[in-house]
Parts: sequence; C-alpha cells; structure tokens
Amino acid sequence: MHAYRTHNCGALRATDAGSTARLSGWVHRKRDHGGLLFLDLRDHFGITQCVVAQGSPVFEAADALRPESVVTLTGEVVLREPSTVNPRLPTGEVELRVRELAVQSAAEVLPIQVAGEQEFPEDLRLRYRFLDLRREKQHRNILLRAGVIASIRRRMIEQGFVEFQTPILTASSPEGARDFLVPARNHPGKFYALPQAPQQFKQLCMVAGFDRYFQIAPCFRDEAARADRSPGEFYQLDFEMSFVTQEDVFAAIEPVMAGVFQEFGNGRKVTDTPFPRIAYDTAMLEYGSDKPDLRNPLKITDVTEPFRDSGFGLFNKVVAGGGIVRAIPAPGAADKPRGFFDKLNEWARAQGAGGLGYIQFAADGAKGPIAKNLEPERVEAIRAACNLQPGDAVFFAAGKKDETPKFAGKVRTRLGEELGLIEGGEFRFCWIVDFPMYELNEETGLIDFSHNPFSMPQGGLEALNSMDPLEIKAFQYDIVCNGIELSSGAIRNHRPDIMIRAFEIAGYSADEVEARFGGMLNAFRYGAPPHGGSAPGIDRMVMLLADEPNIREVILFPLNQGGEDLMMGAPAPVEPARLKELSIRLDLPPAKPAASAGGTVPGGSSQKETPKAAPEASAPKANA
Amino acid sequence: MHAYRTHNCGALRATDAGSTARLSGWVHRKRDHGGLLFLDLRDHFGITQCVVAQGSPVFEAADALRPESVVTLTGEVVLREPSTVNPRLPTGEVELRVRELAVQSAAEVLPIQVAGEQEFPEDLRLRYRFLDLRREKQHRNILLRAGVIASIRRRMIEQGFVEFQTPILTASSPEGARDFLVPARNHPGKFYALPQAPQQFKQLCMVAGFDRYFQIAPCFRDEAARADRSPGEFYQLDFEMSFVTQEDVFAAIEPVMAGVFQEFGNGRKVTDTPFPRIAYDTAMLEYGSDKPDLRNPLKITDVTEPFRDSGFGLFNKVVAGGGIVRAIPAPGAADKPRGFFDKLNEWARAQGAGGLGYIQFAADGAKGPIAKNLEPERVEAIRAACNLQPGDAVFFAAGKKDETPKFAGKVRTRLGEELGLIEGGEFRFCWIVDFPMYELNEETGLIDFSHNPFSMPQGGLEALNSMDPLEIKAFQYDIVCNGIELSSGAIRNHRPDIMIRAFEIAGYSADEVEARFGGMLNAFRYGAPPHGGSAPGIDRMVMLLADEPNIREVILFPLNQGGEDLMMGAPAPVEPARLKELSIRLDLPPAKPAASAGGTVPGGSSQKETPKAAPEASAPKANA
Repeated sequence: MHAYRTHNCGALRATDAGSTARLSGWVHRKRDHGGLLFLDLRDHFGITQCVVAQGSPVFEAADALRPESVVTLTGEVVLREPSTVNPRLPTGEVELRVRELAVQSAAEVLPIQVAGEQEFPEDLRLRYRFLDLRREKQHRNILLRAGVIASIRRRMIEQGFVEFQTPILTASSPEGARDFLVPARNHPGKFYALPQAPQQFKQLCMVAGFDRYFQIAPCFRDEAARADRSPGEFYQLDFEMSFVTQEDVFAAIEPVMAGVFQEFGNGRKVTDTPFPRIAYDTAMLEYGSDKPDLRNPLKITDVTEPFRDSGFGLFNKVVAGGGIVRAIPAPGAADKPRGFFDKLNEWARAQGAGGLGYIQFAADGAKGPIAKNLEPERVEAIRAACNLQPGDAVFFAAGKKDETPKFAGKVRTRLGEELGLIEGGEFRFCWIVDFPMYELNEETGLIDFSHNPFSMPQGGLEALNSMDPLEIKAFQYDIVCNGIELSSGAIRNHRPDIMIRAFEIAGYSADEVEARFGGMLNAFRYGAPPHGGSAPGIDRMVMLLADEPNIREVILFPLNQGGEDLMMGAPAPVEPARLKELSIRLDLPPAKPAASAGGTVPGGSSQKETPKAAPEASAPKANA
Repeated sequence: MHAYRTHNCGALRATDAGSTARLSGWVHRKRDHGGLLFLDLRDHFGITQCVVAQGSPVFEAADALRPESVVTLTGEVVLREPSTVNPRLPTGEVELRVRELAVQSAAEVLPIQVAGEQEFPEDLRLRYRFLDLRREKQHRNILLRAGVIASIRRRMIEQGFVEFQTPILTASSPEGARDFLVPARNHPGKFYALPQAPQQFKQLCMVAGFDRYFQIAPCFRDEAARADRSPGEFYQLDFEMSFVTQEDVFAAIEPVMAGVFQEFGNGRKVTDTPFPRIAYDTAMLEYGSDKPDLRNPLKITDVTEPFRDSGFGLFNKVVAGGGIVRAIPAPGAADKPRGFFDKLNEWARAQGAGGLGYIQFAADGAKGPIAKNLEPERVEAIRAACNLQPGDAVFFAAGKKDETPKFAGKVRTRLGEELGLIEGGEFRFCWIVDFPMYELNEETGLIDFSHNPFSMPQGGLEALNSMDPLEIKAFQYDIVCNGIELSSGAIRNHRPDIMIRAFEIAGYSADEVEARFGGMLNAFRYGAPPHGGSAPGIDRMVMLLADEPNIREVILFPLNQGGEDLMMGAPAPVEPARLKELSIRLDLPPAKPAASAGGTVPGGSSQKETPKAAPEASAPKANA
C-alpha cells in the first residue's frame, strides 16, 4: 500500500465500500459523538468523513489532533447509514472506519481558521497566506485563475500564436508609469529596469519575423495599489500579430476571450462574436464613457439644439456659452415620488454639477420644473429624440463640452443602478475604436497625443499632412467588458517617416524622437511588417469571472496594499556590504516623527514627462 | 482581397496555379536574370519565389528594393517550368507573377545579412537581434524553445499539475547564489529581491493544500555568465507534489521528460522509462561523477586491493597511505601506438595528476610499465575485475580517496571520446539518488550539509539520532541527461523537529535556525504535508535538443556575457532624481585607469555563508 494514500479525499464512492483505503490530508473538522470521533479529512480534491471508535488503539491519538494537522488514515470504507448520507459531498455516501493513524504534521493553535466562514483582517490573512489559501473560496479563486490562464494558452496556440518569454531584466521603457530599478553589480552606476510591459519586445518579435506572438507576461509598475491594481507585478495576455488590420486583431482574440468567459462563466451569458465596435465619439455621446457598461441599457442623447434659445433660461445660457445638454432616459420613472428626483439632484451636486434637471412624461403630459418653462414643441422634440413613452422620465446634464459627456455617463450609471436596469449574470463585451490621435491641451493650448503616440494614424502620412490634427483618428482600440477596460491595443506605426511626422505635430523635433525612441525607430529601418496587438489584463479577467472586486483575492501570494509581502518579509533591509557591492548606498529621507513601519504608501510624485507611450495593459490608467 | 495577404509565404502549391494571390514578407534574395527579376519572398512560414518581368509597371520599384525590405506582392500563381521546380521548398512548384507591389517598409543597408550562412560576431548579432532572429537557425531555435515549453505545459497538466505564478518581487531567499535587489520606493532603506527560484513559494503551495504545482518559472541569479548559464534570468520547470515518495516524483516527471525529448528529438533515441536510478556512491565509483554521461559505455572499477602490498611501488605507496586506485577500461586499445598512451599521460599531468598508468592486455599477455612490476596473479585479478578481453587496455587513476574518483571520471570521459565510444544521437537519462546528507569539511574537520539542508534525511529523526552522520543519506536526487545535470530535487523535510535536529548536527543552534528560516519553519507548524519535487532547467533542455552549446542561442533576447542588453541599452544610468526617490545614491568605486565600458565581469566575491539551501535548479553549481 502506498505510504500516504490509495485515494485522495474526494475519491471514495459507494462502490468502494468493503475495500481498505488509505487517505492523507488535513483535519478539517473534528466532532466527538459520544464514543465515536468523526474526522473530516480534507485535501485538494475533497473531504471524506473518517470515524474512530472509542476503544480503538488510535482513539487517543485521534482525539489529541488539532484542526489542520496532517494525518494519514487507513481503514475500511463503509456505507453510511441512509440517514447520515451527505448529498452535498461527492464522498457523502461512505465513511472510512479508521484502523491506523499516522500523524505527518501536528498543527499548533491556528492564527486563522480554515473551516467555516469567519472573516479575518487582510493583513492577518496575508501573513498566514498558506492557511488562508486552504479556505474554500480562496482555494477556488486561485484554481480559477490557473484554469483561465491554461485555457487562454490553449486557445491562443489554437489561433496560431506562439508563446515567447521576453526579458525581465531590461531597459527602462517609454511607457507612462514608474519602473522598478535593479542595480547592475558589474556595471557600477547602471541599472536594469523591470518591464512595465513587453511592448517593445513584442514589436521587435514582429520585426524579427515571428508572425503571431503571445505571452502570459509578468509586468511591473512602481505605482500605488488600488482595489483593482496590485502594487508591484501583474499579468497580461500580451499579444501581437504581423500583416494584420484592426479587424484581423479582433477576429483573432474575440474567440479566445469569448471562449474563456463561456468556459469559466458558470453559465453567465457572454456577448456573441463579433463583439460590437463602438466609435470613441459614439461611446462618449451615448454612454458618456470610453468604457461603457453595456449591461446598462440606457443610451444618452444630445439635446443641445432643443434647448438653444429656449424658454428654460438656465440651459439656454449654457448653450449660448458654447455648452451642451445631454439627455439620459429614466424608463418608467415618471411616477417616482419627489424624493427620487431630489435625491438624484443632491447626488449630482455632490458630484460637482449644478444639479440634475428632469422632465416627467406622465400619462397626462410632461411635468417638472423644466417642462413648465420649456416650449411644448421643444419638450416634444426631446421626447421624440429620446424615444420616451408615457410613464418615462428624462434627466439632463448640461455644461461645458468637455466635462458634460462624462457627467452624463455617471448619471446613466446611477440611473441604471437606481432603476435596477443592470442585467446581472452577463459578460457584455465591446470594442471602442477610432480613438482620436491628438487632443488639445487646455492648459497650454498645444496639441498632445491623446493616447499612444506609437499607434498608426488612420490615413497615414497623408492624413498627418492634410487634416486638422484634432480630426485624425488612430488605429487604436480598447476591449471593454461590463464597463471595465481589459486592455488598450493598436495597429502600430511601423514607419519611421510617419512616426517622425506624428511627433512633429505634437511638438517634438526629429532629433528628440531619435534620442528617445531611437531603438525602436532603428529596428523599423531594416524592414518592419505592419503589425498590431493588445494585452488584456489577466488579473482583471479573473476578477470578473470570480466576481471579486479585490485583486488580491485572485493572486496566489499578493503584496499588501503597502507593497509588502507580510509572509516572507519583503521588502527588507540588506547588509551594507551588499549595497557596496552594487555601488550604491542608502540616502534616507529625514526620519518623520510618526513614521509607521509598514503599509504606508506616500502619495508618490508622478513621474510626468512627455512624450510617452500610453501603457497598453491591464494596469488601469489613473482616470480609470 | 485582404490588405496584406491571401496566403502566407509557405502556403502556395501547384493546385493554386491560375489563382490570384497576395503575399507579404521580407525580400530574402533578389536575382536579376536578364529581363526577369526574381524575388524570394520570406515570412515566418516559408519562402515563395516571385517574378517581375522587365517592362512591368512595378519593375523599377522592385529593382530598387534592398534585401529585407517588407513588401506586399499581388499577382498570378503559375506553375514553374519542370526544370526550375525547387523540390527543397514546399512552394517550389509554383511562383507568383507580380502585378502589384506595395512597399510596406524599405530596408536600409543591413549590418548583418539574413540570407546565407555567414557568421557574425556575437555582439553585433545581439545588437541587431531583430535581424539575427530572422536567420533560419536562430528562428528555428526559438520556435523549438516555444514548442518545448508548450509541450511541457500540456504534459504537466495531463499529469494533474496546476500552474501558478509565484511572486517575482519578493524576499531574499536562502539559496546559495547572489540575489538581484530592487529598491522599494515606499519603504526607504528596504529592498525586494528577485527570486533565485520559487523554492519557498512552491513548498508553501503544498502547505496551502494545492496538491501538484508547476510553473515555467523565471529565476534570477546575479552570477557571472558561462556558456550554459545566462548572467541574469533563466527558466526552470519548477514543480512540487504532496503526499509523495521519491518514486512518485520520478513516475510523475519521467513521462514528461521522455515525451518532450521524443517529440522534439528528431528521431534521436530517448531512454525508456523508468529511467535508471544510480546511487550517488555507485555513480562516483563507476562513472567518477554524479552526472554521468551514460552514452559513454565505460565503467570504472575499484582496484585498490590488487595493488595493496604489490610489486608496483608507486601505487603500493598510494594504497598504504590510505589512497585508492581506480581502473578505467579502454576496450580495443591494447594495440594503440605508444603515442596514444604518452598523449594521455601528458593530458593527465596537465590535469594535475601524477600520470596515467596503464596495462595493455595484448594477445600475447599483459604489457606496459605496470605489468612489468605487478605480480601476474594481481594483473589477472585486475583483468577479471574489469572484465577485459585480449586486445583491451586499462588505465589507472591512483591517489587520495576524495580526489581520485573524480579524476577517474575525467579519464573515463576522455577515453570515451578518444576511442569514439560516445553514442551520438541519443538522450540517455538517469536519476542519481541517495546523496549523502552530510560531508566532512576537510578544512575545519566539522560536519557540513553536503547538498540541501532542507531535504528529508533517509530514516528521519531516528537516523539523525542514531547513525554516523556521514553515513546518512538524503531523499535527494538529480536528473541527468547525457552528462548534464538538468536539476536537483528532493523530498523535503517538512518536520520542524527533524529540521532542527538536522541543523544541530551541522553545528547550528535551534535559535540560529529559527532566526534564519523561521518563515518556513513557522509554516510547517500549522500542518504541512510530506512533499517533494524538482526543477529541470528549460534552457538546458532546449540546448540539448537544439544541440547548441551556447545558451544564448536558445533565448529570444539574451543578455550578453557581460550582462548587457546591447539592443535595448541595459543596464543604463538613471537620473539622480529617480535614485533620490528610491532613497539611494551612487557609491561608485574609484575609477580604474583602464575601466572598460562593457562586457567586463569582475570576478565577484562569492557571497559565501552557511547554512544555505543548495539551489535546486537549472543554474549549474559552481563545480558543474
């Protein structure tokens, strides 16, 4: 007989009754039922009830076991009495009558419980992560993550992608965030950087003639933690393809995303492929966001014109001043009590808006403060534009051109929630396309790149040379699920001439571009294929599938919010001799009176320079 | 028609003749055959011959193309003349008559050629790695690596392993090598370390109740480069299993290793499973090495006794002084000319040995200087012990007990090569088992751990308490292929009581053990399963399969031997403000007069402390 087990703890069935079995696992629960000791033995695969009779030679040893001790139990598999069968356990028809017991590892008193649903503080859980991970939900989340990643790999390979490992000790990259640095012992005064993303390497893979690259890529950003962002490392499905249009990229990755969400979505509905493509301008108009949650059925309408020179003075003034008015429908809300409208108005003020005007289309006509002052034909024009029915209401966001669409988006979200319109149990995907290449910097009055300076402008060199820069779109796209941006992506600018012109429009000389991005430009000078890709965030996909708002719940051994590994004790001081070897020494800030040992994350001055490639990745942007 | 291609460059066949096709790729070769311009168009998938006729509207543009320019060619697929069919190309029956040509990316004059077999200096190749990787062998090597890794993953998952990502920003680990350090911006004076291997994390996975873990794990060691070791990062197939014996580990991983080598071995023979298990003591005796190359059929025999008190004074003295004599057979070498024996003798002296005695068993009896002085019955005893036939010879390694076995191993290797006995075209695997737990430190006279202090001693606590420590074996094993150690591995010591006793024997107090390894010990106090694993080196496996002695040939974007990324320019200086933010500053060594900018690797004082866990991994040990 095997030293530890003939079966795992999820394996025994009624058909095994009568045989001798050996199980190993953790003592999940122990119950003394007068003369009989019940041990629920747990391993990775399940739980089996084991029974030790009083008077058995191993009773005393079994009785002394603390929960979470590891034991090997040998005995006879017997059918349970019908009344004690546990239908919720796959092994619930049988139990093991223990004859031999070997203690592999005796547990001390536990700092956190494994059995049961008790909640524990996160720091305690992370310090004892090896115990925390034994708990059912945590164990399941980590297995889900592993399953998702294995499935992605299989699907990407089926789509003709090849996985490569790109360097982790590399050069500082032009992405927007702060790099982690690694002193190079043999090159005093020099440092490696950990990659924020393998962006340049994947493009170099294409230049090197590999046709379809992917990688479950570890990425590193020295940024503060947030609920959906780990403070150190995260993983993305990094991929890139040669000789492709934007539609080819979508066609390659959509089946992977849809397939994974179908496979692990537990029956939740997933958007059929092809996913909707929504132009950036349309998204900002209809959803007030470039990452719309399509589970919310509400769509925003522009109603600036009906309010121009109208009888409703407030909006009249907004429009006359160059502002806009957006209408957000509230189906069936006409009959809501006054408090409903007042509460939303208060909420809007708390958001910094002047308020939230509305019209109620009651069965007997339009009502509310605006309807009183607005000419009836204009009220009707709004009703028609928004396709409202009797019983519906509509809210208005009015103000500046650049702020109002986003505020309208917030109203849309809020109304969706208030009215219970969000369709739960669905994964609604879309692509946001046709992002503007440039935007006007309101402060400087100059033209900036709006997203990634390395994306190909639509229309290429000709567009750059002939169009109003603010009208030029880029072959840049985001994939969004349930209002969460999983990734940016782009068809890249692989042409040095177009890149230099694109930067020139944003105010950079050819010399500056060469100095800063010479490596990439140089590679493009020896035959570069048209190429493009994206990099959906793995952690975020798993968060969506696990329905976990905290990213640390889907990472095996996460750092805490302060960037500390409480279990292993990282970061930690190192001996001065080690630093000497690295040709560095400490240069500590003056001690603060109330400096706390851990968990404090100073705000962190933003390492803001231009130009930079917007990170194409799962680590969300600051405004996400 | 697709903007870039209807087919890839390896797809067109005779059956496509008559159709219109569009191809995109790199101009591999260009030949002007008076009036016809032949373009070999290459992509990831293959090469297609394309033809432009003089007078064609695109002739001039085609003629102006430099090699490695990227173009899109559209035209008619036509059958080649039978005399011009190229049977070595899958597309060799057809060619594309070009009607349209679009230049996607014009190449400048190349620093290294892609077509052809020309050799280029490594630094130039690494600087232009994106060109180097387009070359056939390099491209193939990297695809082999990707294929091997994908196959390993598939096979591990089939064996019930689950892949997890362990942290990369973590704490300094107790493995033997030097860590890379990462300053923690939000924790002034503290540092993360990059993992030398996920050793502790994988053991914690087992403690956390995951049954079978694996990871294609990036590992980092700040060590000097060698032909088979990259200076920064490397990958290993890290795995660990719970509730297993040593044989379970072997049974789980052998089909994976054998399967991968069969799949990618190009018909080369692979050792049948189960692989031979060879005890460490036997390996040192019979092969003079703990990583024997079993393709070499020679086996060493101990012949100390036949020389004891014998007429051959030199060896007599060696044996009387406590030394040993080992015999290495040289089948069929009896008739070799004197020069053969002289050359080996010189080689032995260059190795630091006194010389290399031998006996020739000629058809008419034993010959040579030793045979002259040694009693005939002793000569016969040696012949019989070594199972030598007339026509064979035998060499002797004589000297101290600790050095002689290894020297005999070198003689064995040398003889195998000299006599052409190494069986090429095979992958010969074996396990080396039963490593000693302890060894005598000759300098201090004290007992040290010989390999990994965290392996389980055979016999457990009882053995530690009752046996001569130097007789105790560990459940520790190496997997070896063709004389190359792919990995160490072990059944771990999961019992704090046994660990503290094991360290006590090596001279460490319980307090010292707690201080240094408290994290692991602590985890083992809350219920730890018996567990074990190993971590075969991925880079080494691919090197074996690709038959490449240089590790940089099987890595996509390797650092050079000096630890520099010549393409991306890493490591690099960083701005003082960045260092300030990290609470460090430079502490440069005094400038040397002849300090060279790159490629110099100072010897590096070994960060030698005890106790340490021997690295279980692909990064070879210092004496590998």
